[in-house]
Amino acid sequence: MSIYLHDIPLPQAQARFQQALEEANLWRVLSVEVIPLDENALGRVTAEPIWAKISSPHYHASAMDGFALRAVYTNGALPSKPITLHLGPEAEYVDTGDPLPQWADAVIPIENVESLDEHGNITKDIRDPASIRIRASVAPWSHVRPLGEDIVATQLVLPAGRVLRPVDLGAIAAAGHQEVKAARKPKVAIIPTGTELVPIGSPLKAGDILEYNSLVIAAQVRSMGGEATRYPIVRDDFELICERVLEAAQSHDLILLNAGSSAGAEDFSAKVVEKLGTLLVHGVAVRPGHPVILGLLNRQSLIENRKSQIVNRQSPIVNRKSLNPESETWNLKPIIGVPGYPVSAALTVDIFVEPILAKWLGRRQKELPVETAALTRKLVSPAGDDDFVRVVVGEVGGKLLAAPLSRGAGVITSLVQADGLALVPSGAQGIEAGEKIQVRLYRSKAEIEKTIFCIGSHDLTLDLLAQFLSEHDRRLVSANVGSQGGLIALRRGEAHLAGSHLLDPQTGEYNISSIRRYMPGRPVKVIALVGREQGLIVKKGNPKGITDLRSLTSSQVRFMNRQRGAGTRVLLDYHLNSMTIPSESIVGYHQEEYTHLAVAASVASGRADCGLGIAAAAQALDLDFIPLFQERYDLVIPKEYAEHELLAPLFRLLTDSPFREAVSQLTGYDVSVMGKIILEDE
Amino acid sequence: MSIYLHDIPLPQAQARFQQALEEANLWRVLSVEVIPLDENALGRVTAEPIWAKISSPHYHASAMDGFALRAVYTNGALPSKPITLHLGPEAEYVDTGDPLPQWADAVIPIENVESLDEHGNITKDIRDPASIRIRASVAPWSHVRPLGEDIVATQLVLPAGRVLRPVDLGAIAAAGHQEVKAARKPKVAIIPTGTELVPIGSPLKAGDILEYNSLVIAAQVRSMGGEATRYPIVRDDFELICERVLEAAQSHDLILLNAGSSAGAEDFSAKVVEKLGTLLVHGVAVRPGHPVILGLLNRQSLIENRKSQIVNRQSPIVNRKSLNPESETWNLKPIIGVPGYPVSAALTVDIFVEPILAKWLGRRQKELPVETAALTRKLVSPAGDDDFVRVVVGEVGGKLLAAPLSRGAGVITSLVQADGLALVPSGAQGIEAGEKIQVRLYRSKAEIEKTIFCIGSHDLTLDLLAQFLSEHDRRLVSANVGSQGGLIALRRGEAHLAGSHLLDPQTGEYNISSIRRYMPGRPVKVIALVGREQGLIVKKGNPKGITDLRSLTSSQVRFMNRQRGAGTRVLLDYHLNSMTIPSESIVGYHQEEYTHLAVAASVASGRADCGLGIAAAAQALDLDFIPLFQERYDLVIPKEYAEHELLAPLFRLLTDSPFREAVSQLTGYDVSVMGKIILEDE
Repeated sequence: MSIYLHDIPLPQAQARFQQALEEANLWRVLSVEVIPLDENALGRVTAEPIWAKISSPHYHASAMDGFALRAVYTNGALPSKPITLHLGPEAEYVDTGDPLPQWADAVIPIENVESLDEHGNITKDIRDPASIRIRASVAPWSHVRPLGEDIVATQLVLPAGRVLRPVDLGAIAAAGHQEVKAARKPKVAIIPTGTELVPIGSPLKAGDILEYNSLVIAAQVRSMGGEATRYPIVRDDFELICERVLEAAQSHDLILLNAGSSAGAEDFSAKVVEKLGTLLVHGVAVRPGHPVILGLLNRQSLIENRKSQIVNRQSPIVNRKSLNPESETWNLKPIIGVPGYPVSAALTVDIFVEPILAKWLGRRQKELPVETAALTRKLVSPAGDDDFVRVVVGEVGGKLLAAPLSRGAGVITSLVQADGLALVPSGAQGIEAGEKIQVRLYRSKAEIEKTIFCIGSHDLTLDLLAQFLSEHDRRLVSANVGSQGGLIALRRGEAHLAGSHLLDPQTGEYNISSIRRYMPGRPVKVIALVGREQGLIVKKGNPKGITDLRSLTSSQVRFMNRQRGAGTRVLLDYHLNSMTIPSESIVGYHQEEYTHLAVAASVASGRADCGLGIAAAAQALDLDFIPLFQERYDLVIPKEYAEHELLAPLFRLLTDSPFREAVSQLTGYDVSVMGKIILEDE
Repeated sequence: MSIYLHDIPLPQAQARFQQALEEANLWRVLSVEVIPLDENALGRVTAEPIWAKISSPHYHASAMDGFALRAVYTNGALPSKPITLHLGPEAEYVDTGDPLPQWADAVIPIENVESLDEHGNITKDIRDPASIRIRASVAPWSHVRPLGEDIVATQLVLPAGRVLRPVDLGAIAAAGHQEVKAARKPKVAIIPTGTELVPIGSPLKAGDILEYNSLVIAAQVRSMGGEATRYPIVRDDFELICERVLEAAQSHDLILLNAGSSAGAEDFSAKVVEKLGTLLVHGVAVRPGHPVILGLLNRQSLIENRKSQIVNRQSPIVNRKSLNPESETWNLKPIIGVPGYPVSAALTVDIFVEPILAKWLGRRQKELPVETAALTRKLVSPAGDDDFVRVVVGEVGGKLLAAPLSRGAGVITSLVQADGLALVPSGAQGIEAGEKIQVRLYRSKAEIEKTIFCIGSHDLTLDLLAQFLSEHDRRLVSANVGSQGGLIALRRGEAHLAGSHLLDPQTGEYNISSIRRYMPGRPVKVIALVGREQGLIVKKGNPKGITDLRSLTSSQVRFMNRQRGAGTRVLLDYHLNSMTIPSESIVGYHQEEYTHLAVAASVASGRADCGLGIAAAAQALDLDFIPLFQERYDLVIPKEYAEHELLAPLFRLLTDSPFREAVSQLTGYDVSVMGKIILEDE
């Protein structure tokens, strides 16, 4: 077995799979079932066109409360020349929805008549008068809903392939049906494999991997209209996996074998598919996700496999009844080897499972809306692959922007935070910052228009701010590129505001000189968000006895730095300089992380002994903290957004006591400066 | 009680209701429950921010199959100057996901090493060699997923108010949770009232109305994230309705009383709300839907009402246990009187129920995407109302078009067929054809881009064509404006094609002369769709003894005509003219319907004795048919669309035997001409 996969292009993989399914007569609606017409029919897919059995209304119905009459009797009525009609032979009271009497051909609304008593005087008994006086003629069939106004018996009410919405159910009922023929929900088996997997909620030791892919995939299958079965975890054992696949194939339409889809020592999925059927594709040129397996199980192989198992092992899992080939009506059944990294797994299901379920349900494939956005930073991508990059999307100054998120296939939070997927198509080796890119949007344009795009330095209070803003119909999206990066992004018009804490070594003042330097000529408003403590994050108990920046020069101390342009890096360099400590004397000075939490995590994990950061990050990971400096963290807002309605809720929050209260609960924060205007250009 | 409602503007009604709910402390998340983290959590709404309990990965994990090592030992390795590391002290085999050994700080992928046996020769046992040879140095932490790469313990994973998607469930699991705090699903009671209502599936007599609003509303509530209870139909009895409301209020958060919301003789909803609580709003200036009731039930009123009932009536419905006020914790409960017409009912739920459920669930309100489209025909609207008009939407020549559908509040098919809702805002008395209008879209832009917009004459085969096209990723939307209207729409660039059967009285030829007249200078392609029979549609058994057009001159025969510009109208006028029958001699000549089926329905219902139309329409409604003329029905396609990829599947269908076969099953159609090119301009 090769240790390399030979990836084939995505369209080719899809075509090969579809063709195999067509040849197996599996590229069609699987089967049809009759379901009752109740609210459980919501979301089901019509398997046949629905034709009306009855008309609606099924009789001529009054459209108003009023009097049924013959229009011809009202001819010539004028305000000055009223016509009087007698109840009984000439007029009859009807409520809305009442059938029109056989002899009548119009309705006059009750508010358009004068009700008269038997003496010809106006009566207050407006609904049961002796006669009515009419001062305008009535056209035939006015205020009548004629039979079939809505639906004429035999007409097409809904086509096949309609995903039923609430109003569709009403129309089907109106057309005289009590049941609907719907495509049966496809049954999908999800089999997690891997000796290293443990169920959600297990206590964890190093090397254990929480098995949550089956949860995500089951939810995906459900949202696509299928029924999912999550099998228990199977350890990496070729025979065991074969048995589980056998078992699942009895009662499912599609088998998803999760992980083990690559070509490593314990990757059995491809071998399982080869043994039990036909391996069509192993490796697709799509990222994340390339070790994908597409195959067809063959019933004959399964039967033979089971027979040999029974002879050899008397496996308790195999159901003997199902050994009878007569009890099974299928010959071939699709199986997909889904890669193990969570982002790869979710995208593989979107790319390969959704089209099959759509076909089996007879509905259109789900398509995300596509918009064009400008990329905020350069993307590099392998030329041969279709590369799906998760991005956050915001509209800044009328321009749609896409900021790439982490590209790690193991970073599920990148999918959670993503507003869309940007495709770097196969053939492109990358895309430059500022270039246009197609983005498939997970969120509506309306949501994106209510998005405040914040870029720059990272601070934990931004998470809290996002939470509070979400209660005021705003979404705060923040990309962490450091304080300098944020100001540069503002200059380029790529954000509504930036978080910044750039110390000017000359003046000791924060941000102002950097704003003038990086955003020359751009009027801004600067508002203080918080004062905060910066210091050294060290292991619990401070085992290396670190006391201040001078301790970093010890060869025993491994430091974790922040990236260039981060305010914390500027702060460090300022103090190293004033203390004349050369950066080369610090082990790890060139190791960089992008957030305070990431620095703290590197200390917690032992990757480093200390890092410079904020107190809250140390506290979050139960680390010790050596406070060194006080600094101010500001929000920098170009003037054009400072007065924009989009940001108004943010400004209100800065003077809002619940938000101040919440921030003051965090360690190391001083809210006394919050909301103070530091600078406001004309 | 007044017979008129005093409608108040929509924003005022919404504000009044919201304020009352705020004062009742009901404008908030109702309550929170802990649910297990499984696929049933899909679509639930997070009630609190979710913070990470653990990091992910929770250890430094190998990101590849390969060898763990210390990066520093690889320094200086070059293709020409390899470095050899010994397994055990210097290198250790790791699979993807394995924890990095304590002493290691990097991983080299298996494909980047040469595996050597104990003699220093290359071995095929690539995973268990004695040593490995490395020809390039490795950076520290390369091919390692450091602890916290995805999630750092304590970070914000998801904000409150998130509607959970599949990947969100994965992130929650990755962050160490087994449960989620979710907003409790609001419970909504739907009480259908009306003596005329009968359940779905009942045999119908004139005056019976199928009760399907509760089905539509229940499905709406479910799709909004609530739980709906459909109560049995209550007849129009004030005390009975009060009792049912009482009962529902015990166990539901919101009561929807359907119909009886106007001010007619048997409209009890407002009186019920006045008796049991506070009537806040009766009548909202929105169409369809204006007789809306908004109110609050008051627990004290309910208790008093029940006490008096028990004294007076010993009602069996009242649950005595619930008489104990201690068993109830609520004081005020919202109730909405929903109008009875199905379109009004559905829109009322969208407008008034969705915001409350959104608030109770703590999520954003659902907003439909809004696009600007050009109106295809003039709309007239009462100036005081927000008027929601159902429209079909198509993109023709890069221009988005909105064609209004039936505006009847009783026409649920208008909602079913609608691609969107166009708002004629309060203040406007109407909108001219060609003007821009805001449309809230029910369908994605992708679907609309695949829509073939057909306008013109109506033929039953268009329904079949739509069904066949839907299997080829196209949607056929047809607006019936008659043959002439269709050609005029083509001239204006408002459709991709038009169905037409316009006889030229001079030449006896179809369509060509009309095309030149109504679309001068526009090159077109004309393709025959079908030949079909036109004739007189008469009652079963032909009781009036109608034989031909001459029979229409009898004063005993009431005729139903088609609208001006319809090909069938042209055909009639041509033959009346050639037979010198004056139109004034025909009773009903000025009564118009817009489709063949509507003409047939008017005959079936006795509104008319006969009409001119196609055989299929007569057969559909089990009527008799007197064949008179053969005619050809063509598709007229402007040249620019004739070669467009959008229409390609349509052209293929015309030569497709299953479609021809399906059409030939219809009575009165001749498919021999199908697909024949009648005219093709250069």
